Amino acid sequence: MKIYGDRRSGNCYKLQLLLALLNKQCEWEDIDILKGESRTDGFLQLSPNGKIPILELDDGRVISESNAIMHFLAVGSNLMPTTEFDMAVLLQWQFFEQYSHEPYIAVARYINLYLGMPDTHRTEYVAKQAGGYRALAVMEARLANSPFLVSNYLTLADISLFAYTHVAHEGGFDLSAYPAIRNWIKLVEAQPRFIPMQA
Amino acid sequence: MKIYGDRRSGNCYKLQLLLALLNKQCEWEDIDILKGESRTDGFLQLSPNGKIPILELDDGRVISESNAIMHFLAVGSNLMPTTEFDMAVLLQWQFFEQYSHEPYIAVARYINLYLGMPDTHRTEYVAKQAGGYRALAVMEARLANSPFLVSNYLTLADISLFAYTHVAHEGGFDLSAYPAIRNWIKLVEAQPRFIPMQA
Ligand SMILES: N[C@@H](CCC(=O)N[C@@H](CS)C(=O)NCC(=O)O)C(=O)O
Ligand SMILES: N[C@@H](CCC(=O)N[C@@H](CS)C(=O)NCC(=O)O)C(=O)O
Repeated sequence: MKIYGDRRSGNCYKLQLLLALLNKQCEWEDIDILKGESRTDGFLQLSPNGKIPILELDDGRVISESNAIMHFLAVGSNLMPTTEFDMAVLLQWQFFEQYSHEPYIAVARYINLYLGMPDTHRTEYVAKQAGGYRALAVMEARLANSPFLVSNYLTLADISLFAYTHVAHEGGFDLSAYPAIRNWIKLVEAQPRFIPMQA
Repeated sequence: MKIYGDRRSGNCYKLQLLLALLNKQCEWEDIDILKGESRTDGFLQLSPNGKIPILELDDGRVISESNAIMHFLAVGSNLMPTTEFDMAVLLQWQFFEQYSHEPYIAVARYINLYLGMPDTHRTEYVAKQAGGYRALAVMEARLANSPFLVSNYLTLADISLFAYTHVAHEGGFDLSAYPAIRNWIKLVEAQPRFIPMQA
């Protein structure tokens, strides 16, 4: 199995962190998105949507979408709920991440960190702040009442949302008014075999 | 169990179509998002992200996110793959839908159909076209080689992507150059117990 990814990307870090927590290894190939390496003919043949991360199996089959790859890697592990309700709530948080969190917080971070905040993107950067804070407020409300997003134990949902939340300041987001999120970040970082982002 | 939804919304139609295909019933409460009914204090108490659809269980617990609710409703049905790989690919298409398809095609349709294409939103509408066509091209490439998105059988992935693809023209998208998508739309419409969108 091989992952194609970019080490600065939170979507790719999700997989690195998950593998570390599961104590599993996987081959890794660096793809530099700023050099357009996810849009070459060769890469598009592997994955027509032209985005990283992707997972290539030994038989050549490919899975894209960070959160979907996580489910494949974590089947049967203790990061997966065993009740139907908790499983649906886990998915709820992952879809929330992709729809209401990542498009604001990760994109603001991308403009700041990858692109170096060029004038051409400043309006977009500013426009991302309100949506990002709205997503953080939804997480804060949940984490004020539960140690982890789904329930009392760590799941894929926490890993998915940890990826960009713990570097939200790189997108201009101030977490000082979100104590439950800050506690949860410390709790995730305290898990056995946790690894930091290697950007 | 009760669904809170808006009948014009593709995200809500996913649940109506799924329930019809499963031959299941569920109570329904209309929420008019243009009247702000998803942002009242009462609704935000049910679901802090303030979006429809949500599913409320008889014991009061709530699940949000259309695609997550679908998994809860379809557990054990023949719309769910039985292999780990196919399950991951199903999730891949649902995350693709939320990240690379809905934010373009559904939002363009919303501006046109719900808002009546006001001048204030024309730039945003135009900006949505390229991303929408890119998503359609990814689907076309897959459906040229497979009757359904995951494999040879209908899954939740087809329902999720059918919701806004079959009304893409309402967002200004012309499907005439996408014959595989048009065939797949007919195939989904031909499934036993299919119901059209009731907008
Ligand atoms: N929904 C996707 C998003 C992946 C994504 O946006 N990847 C970015 C890097 S973080 C990328 O590949 N951008 C380069 C491109 O789109 O060409 C996922 O969760 O995997
Ligand atoms: N990711 C969510 C998206 C839901 C969504 O965007 N719902 C829209 C209607 S289609 C909504 O509630 N908009 C009203 C609002 O945000 O106040 C899902 O799949 O359920």
